[in-house]
Amino acid sequence: MRDFLPAEKAHRDRLLSTIKATYREHGFDEIETPVVEDSSRLNSGLGGDNEKLAFGILKRGLGEEDFTKAETALDLIDMGLRFDLTVPLARFYATHRGELPAVFRSIQAAPVWRAERPQKGRYRQFVQCDIDVIGEPGLIAEIELIAATLATLDAIGLEGCTVRINDRRILTSMLGLFGFAPETFDSALITIDKLDKVGQEGVLKELAEKGLPTEALATFFRRPMTMEFLTFGERAIQKFTPEGIDEAPVRDLAAIGHGLGELAHRLTFDPFLVRGMGYYTGTIFEVAHPSADYSLGGGGRYDGMIGRFLGSDVAAVGFSLGFERIVDLVETQAEQSPALAVIYDVDVDPAQLLQVKQQQIAAGNRVRLERRPKNLKPLLEQLAAEGFERYAPLTAAGLGDAKALAAPE
Amino acid sequence: MRDFLPAEKAHRDRLLSTIKATYREHGFDEIETPVVEDSSRLNSGLGGDNEKLAFGILKRGLGEEDFTKAETALDLIDMGLRFDLTVPLARFYATHRGELPAVFRSIQAAPVWRAERPQKGRYRQFVQCDIDVIGEPGLIAEIELIAATLATLDAIGLEGCTVRINDRRILTSMLGLFGFAPETFDSALITIDKLDKVGQEGVLKELAEKGLPTEALATFFRRPMTMEFLTFGERAIQKFTPEGIDEAPVRDLAAIGHGLGELAHRLTFDPFLVRGMGYYTGTIFEVAHPSADYSLGGGGRYDGMIGRFLGSDVAAVGFSLGFERIVDLVETQAEQSPALAVIYDVDVDPAQLLQVKQQQIAAGNRVRLERRPKNLKPLLEQLAAEGFERYAPLTAAGLGDAKALAAPE
Repeated sequence: MRDFLPAEKAHRDRLLSTIKATYREHGFDEIETPVVEDSSRLNSGLGGDNEKLAFGILKRGLGEEDFTKAETALDLIDMGLRFDLTVPLARFYATHRGELPAVFRSIQAAPVWRAERPQKGRYRQFVQCDIDVIGEPGLIAEIELIAATLATLDAIGLEGCTVRINDRRILTSMLGLFGFAPETFDSALITIDKLDKVGQEGVLKELAEKGLPTEALATFFRRPMTMEFLTFGERAIQKFTPEGIDEAPVRDLAAIGHGLGELAHRLTFDPFLVRGMGYYTGTIFEVAHPSADYSLGGGGRYDGMIGRFLGSDVAAVGFSLGFERIVDLVETQAEQSPALAVIYDVDVDPAQLLQVKQQQIAAGNRVRLERRPKNLKPLLEQLAAEGFERYAPLTAAGLGDAKALAAPE
Repeated sequence: MRDFLPAEKAHRDRLLSTIKATYREHGFDEIETPVVEDSSRLNSGLGGDNEKLAFGILKRGLGEEDFTKAETALDLIDMGLRFDLTVPLARFYATHRGELPAVFRSIQAAPVWRAERPQKGRYRQFVQCDIDVIGEPGLIAEIELIAATLATLDAIGLEGCTVRINDRRILTSMLGLFGFAPETFDSALITIDKLDKVGQEGVLKELAEKGLPTEALATFFRRPMTMEFLTFGERAIQKFTPEGIDEAPVRDLAAIGHGLGELAHRLTFDPFLVRGMGYYTGTIFEVAHPSADYSLGGGGRYDGMIGRFLGSDVAAVGFSLGFERIVDLVETQAEQSPALAVIYDVDVDPAQLLQVKQQQIAAGNRVRLERRPKNLKPLLEQLAAEGFERYAPLTAAGLGDAKALAAPE
């Protein structure tokens, strides 16, 4: 877990503001849920492997006797820190459905916690930016989500992002055609999910080690995987369908491409996109940027999940951006209000000091007071590094002319 | 702990943005620390009674054997949720001192957690907005803090706030004069802190029950407590000093009043202001608004605290606003971007739907798509209640004229 110093905090805040403002323009509304959820909800099986990574909160008022009686950690905790924003959203929607519009488009931009082993680029507290459309079974939900996410990535300066798309139903249909038994689908998908990392040979090797059939998949891999085939669009879909695949989800993907209009050229059909979470029931997608070799986020349709909390099924699709993954890709934006450092002599009357500060704030400046040090140079360098453009000396005689601060090299 | 629905979340966000922007104008910089701190830090004695209210996080990987061996909760936890923003700030400053300016002015606006019994108006997760000046022993720190806080409260529409001010050293000097033994000061102050709630008679009664002397204090209470006496300023201070009080802190308060210039009329000297936290070493203050019978926040000087983490003492003064206490006092501000609901017929091509949405966003609208229901009226009412000003029908023939939505009564 990390501290954020002023420059990075300001960068993160500006970025989050732009993301939230763009999603809001697209008709999404921000909500907030508590950081802490009941253990029973966090450990209901919906969070997949992430459930094991939840931080648990010790019940209050326990004593030695309770500790002795406890068999597992679950006996001692009653709440935990959320490990994602999807489980809390499902709980939120089940609680507040009557107060929300029939089709509810939510924004959540908030930290989550996972007790992962510390490693480079992984944090135990990190921010996710999720948008979800709840209550819309039609493909317009996917279309709005993808359009809003691409617009948001454009707005923060990450132009050129593309979305890989697939459908869980295509995956399972394909596995059937390739000769996998249904009970081995989960295991096969875990292996196929590694395609980006280990390549086709690596996937075939691991499937064989698992005792799973590889011949049909190997044949499929040997087909020329031209760019044309992978490019999204009616024609590519038609080339794919004769293979015997379930046609409904293929038609859905084509309809999403059609609905996205000119944005469809930023969509890529990837028949081997898996997405780890078990709760996806239909479309799945991931977003990538040419300058990053990892995905910036992803999502999919999870029509069955909210029903677990509500008792009746509700259609839902979501898109989650990994904020920590994009924050480093995006250049720091300039400050909005000009910053002036007032460097005052030690004998200046505090009343005059405050008066000058108030006047400069009223004139539209962000103002910092600094007592004049013996050696001015290090202070001026630090102020420039912190984004101050100008400084002005203040003596008992009054405020001197403002001078520009050289930007650090 | 609470969920926030879109309208309230937007209200809170706008308010927080204004607070942070105003503090930034005044030269403060926002930082962020993790929600979770090490237990040893949270339970180091600096948090007073709040330490008992900290939520503890169970260590990972423990088994039955560990539970049996545990004697207290502290044996089973290694981290906890922060109960205030001051302990994390002290830890942050000790860690990052070399990267921060000599006088560091921080903003923190973030949630804290306390395992209090649920009661009306109290939440177990709530937001505090703290500003602190670290490294400035002079009274300019108090002057900047108070001026920035009053400007911020003005900016969110809470004009008319006043600050009650006192100094811990005045309190202890006064207790000495009233015949209290030094070892009874803490107990006496706990009682005197209830003056607002139980009145003078209640305070005298409780002190007597504790076996503490009440005569001199009763005499002091019987003096005419005129508004003039309580009004801040040189003259009031002079009336107070002849009593035999330690003069240094009294002069400090007068200097703060002088430094605040015309803002001094919003300052009230309250010789019985206590503030609960034990770490205060000098000035203490609380801010109140005429329409609220509780304080909106407070703070003081705590010069000894950061030294606990750093090894060498560092001057520090802070002001904390209770965000939950002000959020309900402030009227909801209007949306910044106009909101348009596009009500579409079911047969409209999704591609056309997205195109219209994108065009309206490009024209500066926040846009929500709504499928046309059989009965339009409830939908229009809901949209109006959610802050939408206009709606326009969309059919296969194109977007119709936008009509105004009546604001809800």
